[in-house]
Amino acid sequence: MKPDAAALVDSARAGDHGAVARLISLVESGGAAATDAVSRLYPYTGNAYIVGVTGAPGAGKSTITDRLISRIRRDGHAVGVLAIDPTSPFTGGAILGDRVRMQDHATDEGVFIRSMATRGHLGGLALAAPQAVRVLDAAGKPWVIVETVGVGQVEVEIASAADTTVVVVNPGWGDGVQAAKAGLLEIADVLVVNKADRAGVNETVRDLMQMLELGAERSWTPPVIETVATEGTGIDDLFDAIERHRAFLSTDGRLAARRVARLRNELRSIVHARLADQVDDVCSGSEFESLVTRVADRSIDPYTAAEELVTG
Amino acid sequence: MKPDAAALVDSARAGDHGAVARLISLVESGGAAATDAVSRLYPYTGNAYIVGVTGAPGAGKSTITDRLISRIRRDGHAVGVLAIDPTSPFTGGAILGDRVRMQDHATDEGVFIRSMATRGHLGGLALAAPQAVRVLDAAGKPWVIVETVGVGQVEVEIASAADTTVVVVNPGWGDGVQAAKAGLLEIADVLVVNKADRAGVNETVRDLMQMLELGAERSWTPPVIETVATEGTGIDDLFDAIERHRAFLSTDGRLAARRVARLRNELRSIVHARLADQVDDVCSGSEFESLVTRVADRSIDPYTAAEELVTG
Repeated sequence: MKPDAAALVDSARAGDHGAVARLISLVESGGAAATDAVSRLYPYTGNAYIVGVTGAPGAGKSTITDRLISRIRRDGHAVGVLAIDPTSPFTGGAILGDRVRMQDHATDEGVFIRSMATRGHLGGLALAAPQAVRVLDAAGKPWVIVETVGVGQVEVEIASAADTTVVVVNPGWGDGVQAAKAGLLEIADVLVVNKADRAGVNETVRDLMQMLELGAERSWTPPVIETVATEGTGIDDLFDAIERHRAFLSTDGRLAARRVARLRNELRSIVHARLADQVDDVCSGSEFESLVTRVADRSIDPYTAAEELVTG
Repeated sequence: MKPDAAALVDSARAGDHGAVARLISLVESGGAAATDAVSRLYPYTGNAYIVGVTGAPGAGKSTITDRLISRIRRDGHAVGVLAIDPTSPFTGGAILGDRVRMQDHATDEGVFIRSMATRGHLGGLALAAPQAVRVLDAAGKPWVIVETVGVGQVEVEIASAADTTVVVVNPGWGDGVQAAKAGLLEIADVLVVNKADRAGVNETVRDLMQMLELGAERSWTPPVIETVATEGTGIDDLFDAIERHRAFLSTDGRLAARRVARLRNELRSIVHARLADQVDDVCSGSEFESLVTRVADRSIDPYTAAEELVTG
């Protein structure tokens, strides 16, 4: 049965997690059905607070996300989680295989967890992820956590499209140099040194703080939080840091400005994808082949031919 | 003084290397002046035979190119050379710093050597390189050699946009595995194992031949040529292999078909670049900002806004 987007949006807003899952699949698949769903969802969005969690594979992002879920649930708030892995061939409703801890929340009606993986090219996922966030937003989750598995360009782009971006590193992690290299320090609103029971934690915290001081002047200085997520240590501090950043953004219209900047980037990305799609339309069919023949016999040059195709 | 493209094309066709250099700068810089120059040049192209030379840095491509120039000159034919380095900040009329050997040809009027490096993004170079080849083609060079410094995606794309593509490896070079990984075997019409006086040459030749046999069936099997370019050894064999491939292409309309396929790709790339340029036009100005504001206050969703921008 073809899903009726309007009915799905109604059910999702009423708290039906099955409808939420189907809507995410819908926006993930792209095309006209996806844009239709987004246009129906969109008026009900803007209420969720979005936390991005990124960092190198193995840094403990998944465990930190799991602990943050518990912390948010302690206040009684609902939370939606998107775990995004552009490198995985798996996607869909299932929780990723290694997310054993998160399955503790599987029976909690206040928690919705969904993994998203690559569909087609990566640009598709970068566009699809914010739509999936909107589904959770429209479904009334006051908190949405977007966790990415690695530090590739798309993953950093996705994780930084949040209200508060949390970057997770470990003690001794390239003496912090890799964090800087990957551009992670630039996007971090909160820095976490996880596995803080290991050697080198003090040096790593000091290095990160020094790099933050050396970097560009900012109105918000990212706090550096030590955690041992497997034991739950430091998670309250991390949540407090997120709340402090949220309070900071709430002054002087900063949150609104940040979200408008994000929308501006998204609109640009959608326009880019729309125009790139036109290449396939324009460069196929009899007009295209006839122009290729004319270019080959030199009765027209390639640039003039391209002009005819684009304006024609 | 603004260069007059028509006059430059006339001078270049008459053999004026200064005009050739200025035309290459013109097509390299892009924009309306570049497309104007290409449209004037284009009717006089299609006569040069284009040899691409690619392979890992340090494989000896530059020395092989130098030796090929000498071999071509022995027959009395003129030759144009483009040395393309997307990673270098240097470009323009000067010969690349390490091309000491090629400077032997600096006083030879039958030889024109030019380096091209990155201008702006790499896609620009992938589009500019074929235009520079056309300048040399229109200037009456019967042979054009396009040498790229590395095996990045753009470099492989540029080097494979040739009539005969020569791929240079060295003995023991990852047991040939890296050649396969980089897609070099797929684009090779002639394989060269340079520095063939070093240990492991027989194993490398055997590995390459085995991989060619295991690969897709082809109507042309790339010969594997051993050279010691610094001593000139094997260069005649290499040139003979290029001539054999040229003779092969000349039967059954293969050369024409290969060139039409290249033009089809180029036309598509130009259309893509044209449409990508439109993103900047569309996503700026008051209409764009007004739509961003409407998206932010949720009176319109991002996809509908993008639709208005693209079709409006």
